Amino acid sequence: MDLRPPAVRTLLTQLERLPGIGPRSARQLVEHLLTVAPDEVAATASALAALRESVRHCATCFMLTDDEQCAVCSDPGRERGVVLVVEEPTAVWAVEGTGEYHGLYHALLGHLSPLHGVGPGDLTIEQLLRRVHDQGVQEVVLATNPTVEGETTALYIARRLQPVGVEVTRLASGIPVGGEVASVDQVTLAQALQLRRKV
Amino acid sequence: MDLRPPAVRTLLTQLERLPGIGPRSARQLVEHLLTVAPDEVAATASALAALRESVRHCATCFMLTDDEQCAVCSDPGRERGVVLVVEEPTAVWAVEGTGEYHGLYHALLGHLSPLHGVGPGDLTIEQLLRRVHDQGVQEVVLATNPTVEGETTALYIARRLQPVGVEVTRLASGIPVGGEVASVDQVTLAQALQLRRKV
Repeated sequence: MDLRPPAVRTLLTQLERLPGIGPRSARQLVEHLLTVAPDEVAATASALAALRESVRHCATCFMLTDDEQCAVCSDPGRERGVVLVVEEPTAVWAVEGTGEYHGLYHALLGHLSPLHGVGPGDLTIEQLLRRVHDQGVQEVVLATNPTVEGETTALYIARRLQPVGVEVTRLASGIPVGGEVASVDQVTLAQALQLRRKV
Repeated sequence: MDLRPPAVRTLLTQLERLPGIGPRSARQLVEHLLTVAPDEVAATASALAALRESVRHCATCFMLTDDEQCAVCSDPGRERGVVLVVEEPTAVWAVEGTGEYHGLYHALLGHLSPLHGVGPGDLTIEQLLRRVHDQGVQEVVLATNPTVEGETTALYIARRLQPVGVEVTRLASGIPVGGEVASVDQVTLAQALQLRRKV
């Protein structure tokens, strides 16, 4: 006999569809949700429901926003000559958190991945090229992830930007600050060596 | 500048309160939820909202149910002389899944934990004693977890049941089927030795 009430069964199914949540964590989540205050569960439910109702992509840079234009694109104080390009819009939170970057952003909404059928047309590359062309951008900082797909995507965009004559840069790869030389992977270490600086 | 739209920020906060979900998995969940079909997110939200509205504990055995009595308690086909006692109601799903148990259940809704201020009065032990006394139960199977708290709880209940004269049994501990003798922990191995059987 399946002893799970329908509401529990439905929730388990939904939770198990989420990335990183297997049957065991789904069960533990349900156990947790059954013991906390009902208000707390209701708050999580309405936060989930609100996500897709109020959040969308900025019409210009594809970052997450609850307005037509995002806070960065509509801020007259940002440097308009630099555009930093990320794969997912969530990546800009970390960049912005450094306090070191004052230009504009552009989210590609993914990376090139021929194996998964993701070509240039599935990303916001054309929109980036148009922005660079139309808005007099001087530098494009490619901040895609230092993975095979991220590098391929960066290389593709760099090539497409070549005829435009804009400066194209890439975030440095190297040993994470606070990390150990001995435990960093070899590819990263090789990059750190190539990019070594005079002290 | 905090670039996370309010709806994203709220959802991240709610997700990070869940057990096993840190800032990184919360961000990955949000990224996922922003790319799947909006209907899918709405389905998860309503499954969450429905949980505490429709699911409650059985008035007799404290298992999860959407009725006054659970499916087991209201099934005339179950053996009424045996009660299997678990900590959390979700644990009975696994027991029921074996197809080997046909008696009734009782969920304690936790385990004794003096360190966390959980005493006998915080569990459903009195309700269990009353059931055993009133309903002519012949055997109580203690299926609390084989942890320090689970064993303590089992021992406490066994002592309380002694004057009643009911048979009290405990699930066997031992090497999991399919497991390796070499990799099982020493306490489990000691138990498996003590409970060894003639072949």
